[in-house]
Amino acid sequence: MAQHVPIRNRRWILANRPQTEIERDLLTFEDGPLPEPGEGEVLVRNIYLSIDPTHRIWMSDVDQYMEPVAIGDVMRGGTLGVVEVSRAKGLAVGDIVTGQGGWQDYAAVSGKALRRVEPGGLPLAAFMGPLGNIGATAYFGLFEVAKPRPGETVLVSAAAGAVGSLVGQMAKLMGCRVVGIAGSAEKCAWITNELGFDAAVNYRDADLVGAISAACPKGVDVYFDNVGGKILDAALTLININARIAVCGLISTYNEIEQGGGPAMFRNVLMKRARIEGFIVSDYWRRYPEAYAAIGAWLEKGLLKYRMDIRDGLENAPDILKLLFSGAHDGKLLVRVSAEPR
Amino acid sequence: MAQHVPIRNRRWILANRPQTEIERDLLTFEDGPLPEPGEGEVLVRNIYLSIDPTHRIWMSDVDQYMEPVAIGDVMRGGTLGVVEVSRAKGLAVGDIVTGQGGWQDYAAVSGKALRRVEPGGLPLAAFMGPLGNIGATAYFGLFEVAKPRPGETVLVSAAAGAVGSLVGQMAKLMGCRVVGIAGSAEKCAWITNELGFDAAVNYRDADLVGAISAACPKGVDVYFDNVGGKILDAALTLININARIAVCGLISTYNEIEQGGGPAMFRNVLMKRARIEGFIVSDYWRRYPEAYAAIGAWLEKGLLKYRMDIRDGLENAPDILKLLFSGAHDGKLLVRVSAEPR
Repeated sequence: MAQHVPIRNRRWILANRPQTEIERDLLTFEDGPLPEPGEGEVLVRNIYLSIDPTHRIWMSDVDQYMEPVAIGDVMRGGTLGVVEVSRAKGLAVGDIVTGQGGWQDYAAVSGKALRRVEPGGLPLAAFMGPLGNIGATAYFGLFEVAKPRPGETVLVSAAAGAVGSLVGQMAKLMGCRVVGIAGSAEKCAWITNELGFDAAVNYRDADLVGAISAACPKGVDVYFDNVGGKILDAALTLININARIAVCGLISTYNEIEQGGGPAMFRNVLMKRARIEGFIVSDYWRRYPEAYAAIGAWLEKGLLKYRMDIRDGLENAPDILKLLFSGAHDGKLLVRVSAEPR
Repeated sequence: MAQHVPIRNRRWILANRPQTEIERDLLTFEDGPLPEPGEGEVLVRNIYLSIDPTHRIWMSDVDQYMEPVAIGDVMRGGTLGVVEVSRAKGLAVGDIVTGQGGWQDYAAVSGKALRRVEPGGLPLAAFMGPLGNIGATAYFGLFEVAKPRPGETVLVSAAAGAVGSLVGQMAKLMGCRVVGIAGSAEKCAWITNELGFDAAVNYRDADLVGAISAACPKGVDVYFDNVGGKILDAALTLININARIAVCGLISTYNEIEQGGGPAMFRNVLMKRARIEGFIVSDYWRRYPEAYAAIGAWLEKGLLKYRMDIRDGLENAPDILKLLFSGAHDGKLLVRVSAEPR
């Protein structure tokens, strides 16, 4: 049994707050003791660590949607792992679970805070993508917040990203015209050729407003925003009356010195009677089964495609996080912390 | 009969587009011919001209919620007047009507574009205030867009203004804690002592965020925005989770060079899962009777107070419009164009 042998628990500790970009000295990599699961808890060996833009938010101590990670604590992060010791009802050794295992090899987590996954032939990584928080984010953000109608034009930023690629495909399934914004010719080709987006715009285009306008000849009814900043501003410039803007993320602004400035075209919220609404997927957690049922059915029929970008080694996690901010990744970014069970 | 004598029709013509502040040379005052009502139209003698922040928007040729006023056209404006010649079914000479009569003595207007007013003992000016667009703006903006719940904290800017003063009183009627932001000690005293607001903040306070925070110890659930800019930013800083921001106007930004910058605290839309929604009251015109029925009943019971600031002389209209931007007015601003019928 794992707890009887001296196993080290490598972990990333938050040592400093970021000022702008994520630098290696923000986190220190250290060996800690193997966590001891208390009553109602399990010991999980982390297999995959999810790398998400929100990690940058959690590192800061500005007002945010949950408590920032405290200096000296293990860095927070979503994980998929295998139960190695169970002191929780309903969870057995060998079960595959997802939850907040953090940036470490092992975690002691309350059984109530874990979701047991039954792979059923699907790759385990899918439960960190379309069948995990990522899928729920796309589903509730699109259907509960943005609320497009068939025939409307839906614009999505970070469209080749984990959430954006699912949002665009879901909007296509319901009959919208879907335009994606991405950061390379390869990504633009992938979303149009493989995912069925109607058009793609490379945000490095000099005339962003012109390029989006050309791709959205009837204007923008829904903008699903993952990035904020200049792209949000361009979208606001092109919205139709009664447009809806779902704010899922603002990654382009996370590295800014605090309060870097809002969208210059904010006036169009008034002129176009638009709705801008932010959301945090965990607010919908009671309804995740609904999202997973729908997404599972789409996956089974081959109607949703996704790609995972799995990088090796917990020791590389900070550098892997930085990839999110340069866009030098392809699909949902995971760190492989340990091997999948045989 | 009016059309048989040579009556001059004084009118303000839009001559230039404003760059920043409204200057006198934007409009030229000239005598024109008396308009000739066509079939289905009436000739209206304007009695009151409504002076509204949106006039600044209509003068610009930026993308907006309706067509800008064309250079060379009579300046657009809401009016209350008396029918002097009728070629429209259902309207008779002597009827009091409201509509878009423009910045002039007389207008020829389609009968379908006019609302006949039956004063029933109320001052005629009330139909340019709580029983006019102003009242409908407060009513639909509060109940259909902001949607406060009893017990919530509602923050209102331009709270001593035509719309803001009604919004605050309506929110009090439904059991909210109401805090108003205004621009003078006199205005702050009026909204708390006379209108029943729970607290008032003078926006000229050096620490605006601190002052609002002190007046809203439980945070801000609803912000009804008439001004935009720094006050919107302060409100965003203090919003609670699931806050709603109804954008009725952005007067603090109308004189800016185009695209002056959006709210710096925009990130809180995401962090607080907030909804920001712009609205234009004319989108609700089919439901105006519902608003007027409710407001009429509140007025009758003495539950809504308002004040009108009526200034004499069509020739002074541009200077009167400028008062809106300095706040040197008290209540709904009207120009008295001609005398009320005896």
